[in-house]
Amino acid sequence: MTLIDDKTRAALADTANALADVARIATLRHFRADGLLADNKSAGGFDPVTAADREAEQAMRDVLARMRPDDGIVGEEFDAEPGTSGLTWVLDPVDGTRAFLSGTPTWGVLIAVGNDAGPLLGVIDQPYIGERFFGGFGAATLTGPLGRQQLATRAPRPLSEAILFTTFPEVGSPAERAGFEALSGQVRLTRYGMDCYAYGLVAAGQIDLVVEAGLQSYDIQGPMAVIEAAGGVVTDWQGGPAHLGGRVIAAANAEVHAAALAILSKTR
Amino acid sequence: MTLIDDKTRAALADTANALADVARIATLRHFRADGLLADNKSAGGFDPVTAADREAEQAMRDVLARMRPDDGIVGEEFDAEPGTSGLTWVLDPVDGTRAFLSGTPTWGVLIAVGNDAGPLLGVIDQPYIGERFFGGFGAATLTGPLGRQQLATRAPRPLSEAILFTTFPEVGSPAERAGFEALSGQVRLTRYGMDCYAYGLVAAGQIDLVVEAGLQSYDIQGPMAVIEAAGGVVTDWQGGPAHLGGRVIAAANAEVHAAALAILSKTR
Repeated sequence: MTLIDDKTRAALADTANALADVARIATLRHFRADGLLADNKSAGGFDPVTAADREAEQAMRDVLARMRPDDGIVGEEFDAEPGTSGLTWVLDPVDGTRAFLSGTPTWGVLIAVGNDAGPLLGVIDQPYIGERFFGGFGAATLTGPLGRQQLATRAPRPLSEAILFTTFPEVGSPAERAGFEALSGQVRLTRYGMDCYAYGLVAAGQIDLVVEAGLQSYDIQGPMAVIEAAGGVVTDWQGGPAHLGGRVIAAANAEVHAAALAILSKTR
Repeated sequence: MTLIDDKTRAALADTANALADVARIATLRHFRADGLLADNKSAGGFDPVTAADREAEQAMRDVLARMRPDDGIVGEEFDAEPGTSGLTWVLDPVDGTRAFLSGTPTWGVLIAVGNDAGPLLGVIDQPYIGERFFGGFGAATLTGPLGRQQLATRAPRPLSEAILFTTFPEVGSPAERAGFEALSGQVRLTRYGMDCYAYGLVAAGQIDLVVEAGLQSYDIQGPMAVIEAAGGVVTDWQGGPAHLGGRVIAAANAEVHAAALAILSKTR
């Protein structure tokens, strides 16, 4: 485990904000613009990648080269760069490219810095709304249209009172969908379509659970750091580490996490 | 048909903005607040009504009593008030109460003014983002985080390239769901969970279609006026008038409307 002193913590927080700032500018240049470019990365599915994605990641890498040259970088758009500090930045310049292409302000810039054990600090930034969920080292804040506030996840409540989010009804494989639906049948309300914004809502104490599958490390490390700093619990569907992606449960508290895990862990 | 002179048009626009302004204040007082109140209006389903709903509609009715005392009022929360001018305001103080309860900025304040033939002017306001879609008498604008712009729906494209939204996968009755899924199977991308915000995205040229069922007049009249003023087409699933609610197709242009109608009109 890397030892992180107070000065380094402050430097990491400053860097994370600087990254989110440049990504905000780069992505907004393209959001809702006419003639938005989208190419298909995967031949089989719909996985658009935009100029915003590439320009924002490049802008963030430029900031890291200046502010944190010894840290490693893993990003969605370009090759991984190893570092020497023991710390790695994990970047998703536009999480929710389908949302971005549809004009909905539910995509986000995801930023995390951490080590092999997982993220230490993370950001979910929604550039259009001007909203930044920021968390690490045990403290989490939201800065947005209504000012700045501390983030805290909501108190435990029965699954029958819980609000559950995922991005799309298919969730993942047929088995993953069936697992999700078993959980969905037990909660008060299931909602779709929020992409990474849903993780911000867990951190902000608005909802109880986000459940997804098929994630990459850069999809979850930023949200994971924010939610954990706000008091929540993020694991895979077996209760193990989630920072490498795959199947993820993000829960407001240990109680609702355990209740969801009891259902989802039956999924093969 | 009521004759609307330029002075009256300006007065209606000023009034619509004044209504949206007071509703913005009343709703934001409760959005994401702790201890949000929600009672169930219908015994069978999940239809929360919040303090925000009632306070915002009362605030709007107070404005109308002062600015447009001779117009009628139809609102979600209180009894209809007949008028003598031939014009009626149609108000939904919080469209998307489930979104509101979940903290997502996809609910909206819907305002319309019109006559028996339908809405003449409408507003979709998203108070948290600070975004106002405004349209009537052939002109539509968006005022939001990035400033002010003219709204125009997108150009025709094949259904296979279209983006389709609805609020939740069930859509409505089993027959309505099947009709929706027949359409969904033909488009490029289907997304859920945006509530009334999706109609704003049609007006803003970001998406091609919104299809819903089971709407009330106050759910559709504001969006309808905005979309029509931005160049789009809004009808029911048979191509008839949509301003009284029910099953609705909101389309970016006549071509994609016709393509969707060819599929949806088969629904009994």
